[in-house]
Amino acid sequence: MVGTTYEGPGRLRTAPVDLAPPGPGELQIAVAYCGLCGTDLHLVHGDLDARVRTPLVFGHEASGTVAAVGAGVTGWAVGDPLTVMPLLWDGTCAACLAGHQHICRNLVFVGIDSPGALQQRWNVPASIAVPLPADLDLRTAALVEPAAVAVHDVRRSELQVGDRVVVLGGGPIGVLIACVAREAGARVLVAEIDASRRGRVSALGFEVLDPAGADLTAEVERWTGGVGADVVFEVSGAAAAARATTALARVRGTIVVVAIHTAAREIDLQRVFWRELRLLGARVYQRSDFERAIELLRRGVVPAAALISGVVPLEETAAAVEDLSAGRAMKILVHVAGTAGA
Amino acid sequence: MVGTTYEGPGRLRTAPVDLAPPGPGELQIAVAYCGLCGTDLHLVHGDLDARVRTPLVFGHEASGTVAAVGAGVTGWAVGDPLTVMPLLWDGTCAACLAGHQHICRNLVFVGIDSPGALQQRWNVPASIAVPLPADLDLRTAALVEPAAVAVHDVRRSELQVGDRVVVLGGGPIGVLIACVAREAGARVLVAEIDASRRGRVSALGFEVLDPAGADLTAEVERWTGGVGADVVFEVSGAAAAARATTALARVRGTIVVVAIHTAAREIDLQRVFWRELRLLGARVYQRSDFERAIELLRRGVVPAAALISGVVPLEETAAAVEDLSAGRAMKILVHVAGTAGA
Ligand SMILES: [Zn+2]
Ligand SMILES: [Zn+2]
Repeated sequence: MVGTTYEGPGRLRTAPVDLAPPGPGELQIAVAYCGLCGTDLHLVHGDLDARVRTPLVFGHEASGTVAAVGAGVTGWAVGDPLTVMPLLWDGTCAACLAGHQHICRNLVFVGIDSPGALQQRWNVPASIAVPLPADLDLRTAALVEPAAVAVHDVRRSELQVGDRVVVLGGGPIGVLIACVAREAGARVLVAEIDASRRGRVSALGFEVLDPAGADLTAEVERWTGGVGADVVFEVSGAAAAARATTALARVRGTIVVVAIHTAAREIDLQRVFWRELRLLGARVYQRSDFERAIELLRRGVVPAAALISGVVPLEETAAAVEDLSAGRAMKILVHVAGTAGA
Repeated sequence: MVGTTYEGPGRLRTAPVDLAPPGPGELQIAVAYCGLCGTDLHLVHGDLDARVRTPLVFGHEASGTVAAVGAGVTGWAVGDPLTVMPLLWDGTCAACLAGHQHICRNLVFVGIDSPGALQQRWNVPASIAVPLPADLDLRTAALVEPAAVAVHDVRRSELQVGDRVVVLGGGPIGVLIACVAREAGARVLVAEIDASRRGRVSALGFEVLDPAGADLTAEVERWTGGVGADVVFEVSGAAAAARATTALARVRGTIVVVAIHTAAREIDLQRVFWRELRLLGARVYQRSDFERAIELLRRGVVPAAALISGVVPLEETAAAVEDLSAGRAMKILVHVAGTAGA
């Protein structure tokens, strides 16, 4: 059994890893695929070193099947397909007690704060395993986790059928939000500075715009007949985008902050006041978001094939991270089970 | 009949004004009292000169009785007590058509964009007149308009019984918000830098804090048992207060932007994301807010006597504006009907 570990900034290693049997309450997963995301890039670049204990098997966008069932676990059998919602909460903090376990003050993000999915056998608490339908292929199922983020973001926005929605940022999460919003009856415009990403977004049937080459506010004004967008999703993390959000939203419109903003951003509070805007944060997902994401992927609402720009074996994880960092890829899956030595 | 007009920056004049009969659809009001607010100060200081046509009879926090009824107006009789919701909308813009008339794109704010209440006879469309109960004295009724702002702000916040609420700014609007929030079952802490205002707030039974002399975040953390505030009202307009809001709010907490912020403000979007906060703008009021404000004043929930720091005749409007600008007063009413020459 092999796995890929983060050893320090820029250093990954694929090598045999210890294989413990699943503990009480755990499932052992035969991991099939694991997607790589922006958080993984930060981790590999060393940005999360204060939080991470090396060597760390990372990865948290997994699909697989049950390889072994730990003591006391019911409702699961060897061979059952599954994914994992990679959050562990303490259940006792103020956020948990208020029902917001996904914002637990002591949240353990599995794959960062504890071992993740880039290994052929992975033991996880059965409580965070989510069953997959038999007709959902495991490659597509590796997109459940990012799709659940998008479902959560759209649910937070409370968007209504017929809404005009602007998504700032056309990476994987932006595209997933666009897909989920469209399925909810919205018309979606995506703003993205990268030309190849704009091509992918456009091929999926969305309206698309280069914010560097156009007056975003004027374009959205025109696109909405002078009214402004019902919902704006800020997925880019850019200061200029954050600043633009308030100019794009209509009276009583909603802005959802999805991206990580590493510094405080200038926000036009006068516009927030004047138009009675609503600015919301949206973080990860809840169990129901995972279940909806599975359903949307099964129904083809989220076009997995269009999002997955590559599939690589475990040994090529480092190269995949490099491709993603350089903007040469959309979503890359690591084919964990198909790795030599399995 | 006399009125007080704004003639240019710092220049007010109390003199006879034309007395036209009420036009069709209008009521002529015998104005009893008119409160002065921060917007009036801006107006008198010339900050709204781009918008104002001089000479302008200003004032928009009025109480009075019907003096004459224009053609076609039903449901009103001479002597009926009333107040005025000083908003005129076009009814045809996107905001109006969506039901948000108070955010009309062509909103006319009566007393700024059209003649206001600082005159002994005032003609207004009957549609914006709001009847007062016979047992509400007209002095107290001059607080309906600012109280309606507070009702609107609290309604926007969707605060729940038992919530911990922080109000940043202890001027008239801050105090009114505190009163309405307390009536809705919240426990309220007011942060205010001015010592005399803190005294007034404290005398009303609210917890109070000097943000200049204390670590606001730490104090709110302690006050809420480490959880954070359910709702934060930003009423101060200060950059530091805007910046502080996100640190004060609990997971899924709400921040309401009530104040005018003349420049873009730094907001910690990372915290908005991390705690799934909600930041809302709240502007003026709707008809239902006026009706609730009347009821709350009638029931004594809003302590008019504690808020009104002075009552002056029309001729002393300029001195009252000066006292308010210098922070020497809370709410000053102009006793319009009692003016010499009436
Ligand atoms: Zn917790
Ligand atoms: Zn309008």
